[in-house]
Amino acid sequence: MKLFELAQKIGAELTGDGDIEINGVAAIHEAASDEITFISNPKYAPLADAAFAQAAELFYTPAPAAVPGIHPTALVADDAELGEGVCIGPFCVVEAGAVIGRNTVVSAQAYVGHQVRIGADSFLYPQVSIRESCVIGDRVVIHNGTVIGSDGFGYSVNDKGVRTKIKQIGIVQIGDDVEIGANVTIDRARFGKTSVGRGTKIDNLVQIAHNVTIGEDCVLIAQVGLAGSSSVGDRVILAGQVGIAGHLTIGNDTVIAGKAGVTKDVQPGEYLMGMPAVPANVFKRNLAMVALLPKLKKRITDLEAEIRKLAQ
Amino acid sequence: MKLFELAQKIGAELTGDGDIEINGVAAIHEAASDEITFISNPKYAPLADAAFAQAAELFYTPAPAAVPGIHPTALVADDAELGEGVCIGPFCVVEAGAVIGRNTVVSAQAYVGHQVRIGADSFLYPQVSIRESCVIGDRVVIHNGTVIGSDGFGYSVNDKGVRTKIKQIGIVQIGDDVEIGANVTIDRARFGKTSVGRGTKIDNLVQIAHNVTIGEDCVLIAQVGLAGSSSVGDRVILAGQVGIAGHLTIGNDTVIAGKAGVTKDVQPGEYLMGMPAVPANVFKRNLAMVALLPKLKKRITDLEAEIRKLAQ
Amino acid sequence: MKLFELAQKIGAELTGDGDIEINGVAAIHEAASDEITFISNPKYAPLADAAFAQAAELFYTPAPAAVPGIHPTALVADDAELGEGVCIGPFCVVEAGAVIGRNTVVSAQAYVGHQVRIGADSFLYPQVSIRESCVIGDRVVIHNGTVIGSDGFGYSVNDKGVRTKIKQIGIVQIGDDVEIGANVTIDRARFGKTSVGRGTKIDNLVQIAHNVTIGEDCVLIAQVGLAGSSSVGDRVILAGQVGIAGHLTIGNDTVIAGKAGVTKDVQPGEYLMGMPAVPANVFKRNLAMVALLPKLKKRITDLEAEIRKLAQ
Repeated sequence: MKLFELAQKIGAELTGDGDIEINGVAAIHEAASDEITFISNPKYAPLADAAFAQAAELFYTPAPAAVPGIHPTALVADDAELGEGVCIGPFCVVEAGAVIGRNTVVSAQAYVGHQVRIGADSFLYPQVSIRESCVIGDRVVIHNGTVIGSDGFGYSVNDKGVRTKIKQIGIVQIGDDVEIGANVTIDRARFGKTSVGRGTKIDNLVQIAHNVTIGEDCVLIAQVGLAGSSSVGDRVILAGQVGIAGHLTIGNDTVIAGKAGVTKDVQPGEYLMGMPAVPANVFKRNLAMVALLPKLKKRITDLEAEIRKLAQ
Repeated sequence: MKLFELAQKIGAELTGDGDIEINGVAAIHEAASDEITFISNPKYAPLADAAFAQAAELFYTPAPAAVPGIHPTALVADDAELGEGVCIGPFCVVEAGAVIGRNTVVSAQAYVGHQVRIGADSFLYPQVSIRESCVIGDRVVIHNGTVIGSDGFGYSVNDKGVRTKIKQIGIVQIGDDVEIGANVTIDRARFGKTSVGRGTKIDNLVQIAHNVTIGEDCVLIAQVGLAGSSSVGDRVILAGQVGIAGHLTIGNDTVIAGKAGVTKDVQPGEYLMGMPAVPANVFKRNLAMVALLPKLKKRITDLEAEIRKLAQ
Repeated sequence: MKLFELAQKIGAELTGDGDIEINGVAAIHEAASDEITFISNPKYAPLADAAFAQAAELFYTPAPAAVPGIHPTALVADDAELGEGVCIGPFCVVEAGAVIGRNTVVSAQAYVGHQVRIGADSFLYPQVSIRESCVIGDRVVIHNGTVIGSDGFGYSVNDKGVRTKIKQIGIVQIGDDVEIGANVTIDRARFGKTSVGRGTKIDNLVQIAHNVTIGEDCVLIAQVGLAGSSSVGDRVILAGQVGIAGHLTIGNDTVIAGKAGVTKDVQPGEYLMGMPAVPANVFKRNLAMVALLPKLKKRITDLEAEIRKLAQ
């Protein structure tokens, strides 16, 4: 595409040679001579970002839309109910009693277990696994390799330390408009359900244990882990690699910084850091105090010398 | 089911309206009006738990038992040996020389490599991968997406920092009665074997590197990582997100708290916390001392003022 | 194999009974009576290691080489371009426009998306997923369950905390001679590309977010996580469970110790530890100072007592 054409399409003002052939867009530190990039006055950054986004889309070839219907290699149980416009990809398995809402796409090599219910307009990427009886909402996106409904990690233990499995006979329920990244694991409940509320976004490699409840519009960044039966409010942000111990209540609108480990209930609106997690200002004060220690030690040594002098 | 029927089936005393229709069971904070839940005097908690478990099972529809036999879409090598009652699910691949013991289930879309040996009464969930020559015991359960026998992470490095792969020609050996969660990775040994002892339970997203040895009846909670050649004793508990450095020995009956990082050998029976991990009482004392620092600093400042006064 | 035969094959000097039947090799702490192991003077360790490696290979049966060609159960789009000697395993899906270089192996149940380009002599293990338009180099190895090109984790958020997905229309580009472990996740870029440089080795369960750039000959050990748009130089070592925050620059030849959390740019050649990560000597000094605190507190208390005495 010529540069002048691109400028026209995104409504940009052209300065310089409009006949240059443009073959792509890239971030400023990686753009080649036939690619556009953007430099902007910070004041206009949102505007420039929007133009960049528009330009980038002109060069992107999305994967073609999934074709409705059941691929001839897919195995769909006779009594599974598929809504209008559903697409079941090659080598998928859809077990007996599954119900899939209209326009939902189940991509190649995915597994949909017995009695699973999936809403409308959802999208499962290849190799997703949904175990029996789990319930997925509308407009849910689940990326490759993610497992929903694996058994909760529950055992009874005898006095010799030998463990016996406790049956995990609950489900996982995923609300509408949830997005779940790649290779995530969400365990089914012991009883009842493990649940993720409407609008919550979950990044790659996150672990959600049995009977965890997550509210609406939360953000769980990559490699977060939540232990069993913890309850997370609405609009909570758990940054990368955070761990939440079991049986805790995390209030609405809390933010837990990356790598923090939460070992106690968290009040709404708190911002925690560290392991064990403490309010961010306490964490920062502790860091500052520890950095002061060599000086404090010196002051103590000086005091001791002065005392000795005075005591003579 | 009517409430009075449910009470009869679990041998419970009925108080109130027995004609209420009950459609499920749920934890107390999530029960709807047509679901039962339990409130109990803590003294009777184990009793109530048992009744709750019994009631919950009345409402659970398990996935139907796997049907013995080879699904017509599965690919099983001619010389693979399958015991009586083995089930191989759709789109599975079982490679040459594999041996699978009686009544073992290999679910849909799983991969069983060359010369793999799996014992009797084991259960592989969909999309499990077992690489060549690995050995799995009896009554082993492996959840979706788990990979057993990927290459150990071993390279030689030249003086320019370029790495050359070191062949990883050992195996993974999983003992009897082991359960392994979803999306776990266990690498094959450089030589010899990476091994997991009888009865050990491994949660989701755990990483076990090459030549690690894990004893019997251990518990590895989600997102634990063990570096190469470490050796873990029996009845060890590694809580969530723990990391164990390479070439360490972790004694029997040790407990490592969540998120701890173990950098030295651990004596039997120790209970460690923190990064680097130290005995729990040391970790707690250090935390308490750091919290005291603002006061200690104040006491030093006061001392300095008093000394100045005395020295006048 | 008799012991004398083994000695001959690896050019070792035989002492003792050469007629003993040897059935395997093992590490010293796990060798059985029919297995060889090695005990060596530390001075000769490299020599002994080499002999051990040679002996071990005599007993290893590798999986047979993949047979070139398209397995009859695989689905390969008509317009996909496959080089000479390419192998596509059973139940694989290769979408339209994909280009796969000569001698590359795509193992069973793998997914290669639209317009994906893979170089020559690469090897994808079973159940690998490569999403549309991603680019993989020559001699790249990718282990089971790994996902390349899942959507970056990007949303805009309104004043009620509701998030709207930002399209992720970039790609992932993997350089030549890269090896990627099992169940790794590498997200596609918002625009442009997420990239991994030539020769870099990535262990299991690593997370690489959108628009991350990783240089050449790096080592990322298991469970490392890099947040969006961070840029890592050449020959960088990130030890197990390290986290790197977003939008950072990590200089060449840096080493980040296990479990550290990097929150600021890192200068070339630095060696960091802790959370937040600091130079290793600072981290160790801080640990030592904290361990001293009970004694420092005692010295303050003693000073206070002496002052009281002097002031009388």
